[in-house]
Amino acid sequence: MTSGTGAGAESPARVEPFAAVDVIARKRDRLELDDAQIDWVIDAYTRGAVAEEQMSALLMAILLNGMTGREIARWTAAMIASGERLDFSGLDRPTADKHSTGGVGDKITLPLAPLVAACGAAVPQLSGRGLGHTGGTLDKLESIPGWRASLSTAEMLAQLRDPGAVICAAGAGLAPADRRLYALRDVTGTVPSIPLIASSIMSKKIAEGTAALILDVKVGSGAFMKTVDDARELAETMVDLGTRAGVRTVALLTDMATPLGLTAGNALEVAESLEVLAGGGPPDIVELTLALAREMLAAAGLEGADPAAALADGRAMDCWRAMIRAQGGDPDAALPTAREAHTVLVPADGVLVRLDALAVGIAAWRLGAGRARKEDPVQAGAGVVMHAKPGAPVRAGTPLFTLHTDTPERFEAAIAALDGGFDIAPYGSRPPDRPLIIERVPAG
Amino acid sequence: MTSGTGAGAESPARVEPFAAVDVIARKRDRLELDDAQIDWVIDAYTRGAVAEEQMSALLMAILLNGMTGREIARWTAAMIASGERLDFSGLDRPTADKHSTGGVGDKITLPLAPLVAACGAAVPQLSGRGLGHTGGTLDKLESIPGWRASLSTAEMLAQLRDPGAVICAAGAGLAPADRRLYALRDVTGTVPSIPLIASSIMSKKIAEGTAALILDVKVGSGAFMKTVDDARELAETMVDLGTRAGVRTVALLTDMATPLGLTAGNALEVAESLEVLAGGGPPDIVELTLALAREMLAAAGLEGADPAAALADGRAMDCWRAMIRAQGGDPDAALPTAREAHTVLVPADGVLVRLDALAVGIAAWRLGAGRARKEDPVQAGAGVVMHAKPGAPVRAGTPLFTLHTDTPERFEAAIAALDGGFDIAPYGSRPPDRPLIIERVPAG
Repeated sequence: MTSGTGAGAESPARVEPFAAVDVIARKRDRLELDDAQIDWVIDAYTRGAVAEEQMSALLMAILLNGMTGREIARWTAAMIASGERLDFSGLDRPTADKHSTGGVGDKITLPLAPLVAACGAAVPQLSGRGLGHTGGTLDKLESIPGWRASLSTAEMLAQLRDPGAVICAAGAGLAPADRRLYALRDVTGTVPSIPLIASSIMSKKIAEGTAALILDVKVGSGAFMKTVDDARELAETMVDLGTRAGVRTVALLTDMATPLGLTAGNALEVAESLEVLAGGGPPDIVELTLALAREMLAAAGLEGADPAAALADGRAMDCWRAMIRAQGGDPDAALPTAREAHTVLVPADGVLVRLDALAVGIAAWRLGAGRARKEDPVQAGAGVVMHAKPGAPVRAGTPLFTLHTDTPERFEAAIAALDGGFDIAPYGSRPPDRPLIIERVPAG
Repeated sequence: MTSGTGAGAESPARVEPFAAVDVIARKRDRLELDDAQIDWVIDAYTRGAVAEEQMSALLMAILLNGMTGREIARWTAAMIASGERLDFSGLDRPTADKHSTGGVGDKITLPLAPLVAACGAAVPQLSGRGLGHTGGTLDKLESIPGWRASLSTAEMLAQLRDPGAVICAAGAGLAPADRRLYALRDVTGTVPSIPLIASSIMSKKIAEGTAALILDVKVGSGAFMKTVDDARELAETMVDLGTRAGVRTVALLTDMATPLGLTAGNALEVAESLEVLAGGGPPDIVELTLALAREMLAAAGLEGADPAAALADGRAMDCWRAMIRAQGGDPDAALPTAREAHTVLVPADGVLVRLDALAVGIAAWRLGAGRARKEDPVQAGAGVVMHAKPGAPVRAGTPLFTLHTDTPERFEAAIAALDGGFDIAPYGSRPPDRPLIIERVPAG
């Protein structure tokens, strides 16, 4: 055998301005990609002139060798340029959106979008479906009878005028390069890269056309980012990308060591969101919803708004009902429930000092609330109800979790996931002091 | 969007013992792959159960994060297991083979194989074609009218009995996983990885069934390895792989800063090889041929043989003629010549102190001696004749290079490749002292 050199790229028959192998080799060798190379590789991948196996090698090189801020910004811009951009500048109210990096029991979008709309902003919340142990906003809303996630741009615009909030599926036209890249990353082990995560999220949010964006970057066992340092780096990267693109962007780092609220599962989380919209609900959900609402309203220039009042006096609930109805849903219909339930009991008297988000997320996923592959269905009623949160005293033999599923053969695996996912300490113990809102990351 | 976690790998529908994404993630995260994972990923790739884009991500992770000696040995064994193994143990003489990592003007196999056979060993030299700026042994021999590279295993065995040497194409059945991996690496920027280069070479050589193997690891501008340290690492890795597999293996690190001999091109190199077999030829070719022959004979247990005598007395030439004839070639036929020639003149009086192997290799390639893609044809007569080697005094206006091609539009690019590829210093100057044989790497 004679070793090749990769110099085949110099073939005189080439018509493309670059060869994929040269772009890959630059990143492999820790050199910076220039603007023209980044623009070309995204465009050529979209056209099929860069093969899947070439892009995956480049993605792994990016994951392991990183990208500079300039490279990430250009990569994001190239993904935006691969598709259409929405324009909400004709609306008579300012737009503000929120994005969460995903967590267990994170139903915040559900009360938040109508709440912020009730306070005067327009909320264009283009969302995705869940994959793995984190839930998806669209999956949750689809448990409401009649509700549909797919809207035309005209329907979306009409709904942003009245009632002012729309939560719907991002159309295939927004950053289509990201759509393909995301699917590729999922099967090639190239998901956990801060530059790739940041550009994936921000290309869609910038293309979506919101003027203000609040990022909820989750930290902890149930989140993608396990440490505050990683979460801060992701947050700073995304805030920088948004700011460069002219979007007023702020991030909050928030705790995902323990689930948000007392439910994880689609219809279960809708029900909990309705409690919040009715002026009640778990304190952590209320706290985070209000914090994010205040950030969104401030970024939208509506500092005078009072979201706590809008929750208390029913304006947020009115907006929710109008929003659900506008998308074909019946806000008064009974939510679906699972066919089977199983209760996990508290094993000993004491204080619940740890309740692990990842364990609960995997349990809910195994019960049928989430999916392993994009094409899998989810069960509307499946999930986990928690009867205590960290800090609460518990008594042996009383319910700790209620598990719900349509398919009882799933209980065993869900129970196994919860094993080791919580700690009970003697009365008088306290869980580690962990703020829900860890840090605020404003534009640089 | 909700970030996925890659945890889709836990899908209960899975029938494979591993998920490709988990194997990729281990190497991405700098963990060692275990034997079962390596066996599976090579086998599953061969079967199509691991996709090209998954393998290319794994290859990039291997390139950037490396492999341990144990991992490389297992990876090599898995590639060998993907195909057939030849067995020459029934021959009545010991087998010895040589592999070069590829260089410019490296025609050593042509005189070496018949020389070693003339001294009593059997030489099963399974070779490849050239890609990029380095020539391929089969391309060179195919310039001999009638000669054919493809032999059946029975033909190969017969020829190893008499005349004792065979240079032919490696069949598709040897390490087929490597064949696919090599093509994938070529387009994904994952060629320059010592573990992958070593396992690619050694899987084929071990499967080929030789009992002794001498590796000629080239170092310098015209070689794949640019530094002695890299070349030594590759050599040690390959010697270790061969030794673990029971093959008596030794490597020599040899210089490839300047071309070997005075020709680079297919028929041109055959003609130069015939000079060596006739007892003449350039001193560097003779020196390296004899050094490699002595190593091969020693490894084959034939320490008493005298290769210099076999060159001088015509036994090596007789073996060459029989070998060429056995494969349909006419050893007396005139070799093809190119239709056009162009002479590059010495620009100034002085001493040639540098003649760059890469520049000459690229010039020969551009003249038509090499190929950019596997499926490209090569020109038998194309190439570069050098009229001086480093250390030689030269006079302005006399020939420095003669360029040969059938397609004169190629001259310009070849001349451009040579520009800056040599230095002439005032009379009395000397080139840097550089031994041809740099280092010997025996089994650990």
